[in-house]
Amino acid sequence: MSRLQEALNAIAPVDAALLDKAQARLDILTKPKDSLGRLEEFARKLVGITGDIRPRITRKVIFTFAADHGVAEEGVSAFPKEVTRQMVLNFLNGGAGINVLARHAGAEVKVIDIGVDYEFDGKGTDGLLKRKVIRGTRNIRKGPAMTRQEAIDCIETGIALAQEYAEEGAIFGTGEMGIANTTPSSAMIAAFSGADVESVTGRGTGIDDAAFKRKVKVIEDALTVNRPDPADPLDVLSKVGGAEIAGIAGLVIGATARRVPVVVDGFISTAGALVAYELNPLVRDYVFASHNSVEKGHRVMLERMGLRPFVDLDLRLGEGTGAAIAISLVEAAVRIYNEMATFADAGVSGNNA
Amino acid sequence: MSRLQEALNAIAPVDAALLDKAQARLDILTKPKDSLGRLEEFARKLVGITGDIRPRITRKVIFTFAADHGVAEEGVSAFPKEVTRQMVLNFLNGGAGINVLARHAGAEVKVIDIGVDYEFDGKGTDGLLKRKVIRGTRNIRKGPAMTRQEAIDCIETGIALAQEYAEEGAIFGTGEMGIANTTPSSAMIAAFSGADVESVTGRGTGIDDAAFKRKVKVIEDALTVNRPDPADPLDVLSKVGGAEIAGIAGLVIGATARRVPVVVDGFISTAGALVAYELNPLVRDYVFASHNSVEKGHRVMLERMGLRPFVDLDLRLGEGTGAAIAISLVEAAVRIYNEMATFADAGVSGNNA
Repeated sequence: MSRLQEALNAIAPVDAALLDKAQARLDILTKPKDSLGRLEEFARKLVGITGDIRPRITRKVIFTFAADHGVAEEGVSAFPKEVTRQMVLNFLNGGAGINVLARHAGAEVKVIDIGVDYEFDGKGTDGLLKRKVIRGTRNIRKGPAMTRQEAIDCIETGIALAQEYAEEGAIFGTGEMGIANTTPSSAMIAAFSGADVESVTGRGTGIDDAAFKRKVKVIEDALTVNRPDPADPLDVLSKVGGAEIAGIAGLVIGATARRVPVVVDGFISTAGALVAYELNPLVRDYVFASHNSVEKGHRVMLERMGLRPFVDLDLRLGEGTGAAIAISLVEAAVRIYNEMATFADAGVSGNNA
Repeated sequence: MSRLQEALNAIAPVDAALLDKAQARLDILTKPKDSLGRLEEFARKLVGITGDIRPRITRKVIFTFAADHGVAEEGVSAFPKEVTRQMVLNFLNGGAGINVLARHAGAEVKVIDIGVDYEFDGKGTDGLLKRKVIRGTRNIRKGPAMTRQEAIDCIETGIALAQEYAEEGAIFGTGEMGIANTTPSSAMIAAFSGADVESVTGRGTGIDDAAFKRKVKVIEDALTVNRPDPADPLDVLSKVGGAEIAGIAGLVIGATARRVPVVVDGFISTAGALVAYELNPLVRDYVFASHNSVEKGHRVMLERMGLRPFVDLDLRLGEGTGAAIAISLVEAAVRIYNEMATFADAGVSGNNA
């Protein structure tokens, strides 16, 4: 059995009986019932995921997968393709947005070359996780992004990372870097949902009207040329996806199989999580949506999975920046659950009702 | 001149020229332009507030003002009045929601008795800031909550605290505890805005339908009996407000006068900030709205001030819990601004455009 099939088979529903026990604890803490809203939901969810009635978060790891995209040659991005590799070096050097926000959240950042069209070696590449499967995808306007086997290899790279870092108290975040990667993400949600391309396509790093029209046309062409089968998630992923998106799908599957919670970043990361969900819908109970991206297709993906984001900061950077912020909020929820006094301990009168 | 008048006179507009300089710095950081959304807005705002092109946050202080409300005797809350004093002891003991979330944000919590109907002394009251102005307000259904002078004394208590804790690198958060205090908050926004009472009244700590109807009637009666003048913020505050709300108004005024940013918690805190705003609209440029409370009147207040919240967690606990979460996000924004690499430093190619 393949590593992918093995991980998918290992995914189990969360422990529903423990959810009630978690709620019972939340209800004796010194606050009006349900008054901490989604923080209470997150605490319950953590209990269900870990199967531990008193879960702790002791290690926060954000995985930022980097890969190139052949479709960049169509002029769908505001930035040139070499920015992917340049930003990888910036990540390793600690100067990017994700580095700052991860430091603020007390999280580690692991940078993975899963598909960059560049050979990293020597100076400044210490710390890079070298797991290259392909040197960039092929141009989806002209044919499939990758073979089905390449897509599976990328997913299994993500699964292997999840297995390597899974431990009690761990929480993962997802992130990515790949110039042009909102284009495959929009193509994927259009393929899965059947939605009109323009309704799920945004301006990525900030393209103008002409480039936006071109981007919509490129995605429409990619769908016409490749005819991805929405009932076959690996077909969609390999034909119009990307290596980093596949790596994220694998990370989500691997984490879920090991009962490690995963906080998913924005639009592109959610495309990865969506592939995992289409392969096994149980993953949604292990996943936290983080922020509400300004990319239009993001909402369609989240609605499809029944996930509701909770950070509303108009972010559209990617890298894992939204996940870094959200991980700290999930941690806050667990601390509320573990550290607040009960009515009895604090000598506080309960609800009149 | 009174301390209040002096502080109001000291409020100056933020430094608009510095905002452009801050934007220029944000635009050379290694990210697509504007891609960190509201985090960039917060960084600019901090620069304008402090007048420092490289502001830092070195001290985070949340002020939780506690007071009782005569209107509690009308049965408008799900909790008995003694919970106010019990929760003050819980705050001092570190077991409440605000304590946990402030620890998570690295913030101090200062608990102020500004109007609790109880004499705190002896065991367990170390650390309490004893600034009692009144032993609870009077029942607003029957007459004014307090005299105009009592309201001014409460405001000046808040101003004095702001002056005491103002220092370079400081950021303040507001919070409160006072059983029944959503009732005066709804009364205040109804008075200022002229809105229908039911449209700005919520369920507070979680009352049932019958209690909700009673609460609306109590507020309508309070407005009829007191006839607060919406053009006179001190009239509204003293007739249908509360001591902790007045303290928060003072904290906001005092902070603004000293160019210290203030992160405002939910519904009740925003009622305090609103009084400050009605006295001098410039305060809005020094204030960060934190979360979007489930209390209906909150949105009306924020729209009146032109503030947009950024944490969407369905919170309705108060105490400063939303401010604690939001302070950490404002700090994240400042770190982004100070710590990210520039395109030139990181050797990353810029936007094609």
